Amino acid sequence: MRVDLAPTPRGLTPRALAGRAAVVIDVVRTSTTIVTALVHGARGVIPARSIRAARERARALPPGTVLLGGEREGERIPGFALGNSPREYTPERVGGKTVVMTTSNGTRALLMAGAARATAVAGFINLGAVTRWVLDRGDNLVILCAGKAGGLALEDTVCGGLLIGRLREVGAKLVLTDAARAAEILADRFRGDIGRALEESEWARTVGRRGHGEDLELCARLDAFDVTPRLHHGTVRLGQRATGKP
Amino acid sequence: MRVDLAPTPRGLTPRALAGRAAVVIDVVRTSTTIVTALVHGARGVIPARSIRAARERARALPPGTVLLGGEREGERIPGFALGNSPREYTPERVGGKTVVMTTSNGTRALLMAGAARATAVAGFINLGAVTRWVLDRGDNLVILCAGKAGGLALEDTVCGGLLIGRLREVGAKLVLTDAARAAEILADRFRGDIGRALEESEWARTVGRRGHGEDLELCARLDAFDVTPRLHHGTVRLGQRATGKP
Repeated sequence: MRVDLAPTPRGLTPRALAGRAAVVIDVVRTSTTIVTALVHGARGVIPARSIRAARERARALPPGTVLLGGEREGERIPGFALGNSPREYTPERVGGKTVVMTTSNGTRALLMAGAARATAVAGFINLGAVTRWVLDRGDNLVILCAGKAGGLALEDTVCGGLLIGRLREVGAKLVLTDAARAAEILADRFRGDIGRALEESEWARTVGRRGHGEDLELCARLDAFDVTPRLHHGTVRLGQRATGKP
Repeated sequence: MRVDLAPTPRGLTPRALAGRAAVVIDVVRTSTTIVTALVHGARGVIPARSIRAARERARALPPGTVLLGGEREGERIPGFALGNSPREYTPERVGGKTVVMTTSNGTRALLMAGAARATAVAGFINLGAVTRWVLDRGDNLVILCAGKAGGLALEDTVCGGLLIGRLREVGAKLVLTDAARAAEILADRFRGDIGRALEESEWARTVGRRGHGEDLELCARLDAFDVTPRLHHGTVRLGQRATGKP
């Protein structure tokens, strides 16, 4: 299996994704929030490129079935029902609903990943399930990290590197690009201490300073949920039932 | 000192470089070749964006004073006097001459770095000298790795990470972006065994397969030359005299 990793979507073209499986990673917080929303009963999450696109998409769905969610600069968008904290996506709020979501980096990476043959969403929170999904598919893989405006986000690249490490552990024959190999080496440093990757991350520290420290604890929980959210025809849904503990 | 690292020039804007010092790294082989050419008496190296731009630039200089150098896909460009092997840039060939050079990634990174307040060229071969240059300037720093068409080049990012490690060793107070911190951690793995970074690098392996294995040995020589090539008004020249051994 050939594995590439993009530290950010910058410069990535649909062609680089064609015929491959893609795993989109935005640990803090889009991936973690999407996994949580779906485990808590949301019917689907629709990524939207802009606030305007999200509103338009939501208006096209039956009233009462849809919620707007997301953030800009880490904060809830005015008029949106939900921000980008996984703690907001409770069964009471999102159960049975479709969430139209736009975030600064994560949903954009997801939209780009639509060019892949198949696309899953991963964070530390569901890494084991995604590892099995990748192995089951057997396609060449692009790990697409959302990163942040300024470039690479440490926690996303560490998460991607950990996925590579897990594929290797179960004996997958891997041919890595330099970026994928670099991520694997990087992840080795944080193996067994994911919390430290978040402590060292610029973006996670910013999120913590803004009063979302509890979110970071959720984002750092390894394998909390045994689910693989899949992007299909523009909507992210669960590919299998949740069996993990909340 | 704030330190950022760009694994490739992709998505980097002149604005991100403004007011900062830039260190351009293309270990295999542009950085190594530029250092070698200047140590061997070349008066200057002029980076050019394209083959056509290189020819035009050369024609504008007095006949007999200029040589064309560079590569595409690792091979010498038809009609050019020199390729991109440091072994070609002997005192006999380049002494007293100006080299107009175009390479797939390195010279493009250099041209972009012209937007910085000051720009130096680094490889493993002159890392110690560049470390002192960075400290002497004291400016915030962007390490601009040339990378390759497909993204990050392992050896460039390792070299950038090693530079950060050396700044830290001498007690510089560093504020690192995630990308810079990731590179520092990556470089730790190859500290004391730079040859292995080249063995693991996709591009270096390609260069080796094409019969340029001896070049790789030169590229992996740490601190062989105590010089800091500086880009100034479009030409790379030595900022200080060579005191290293060839």
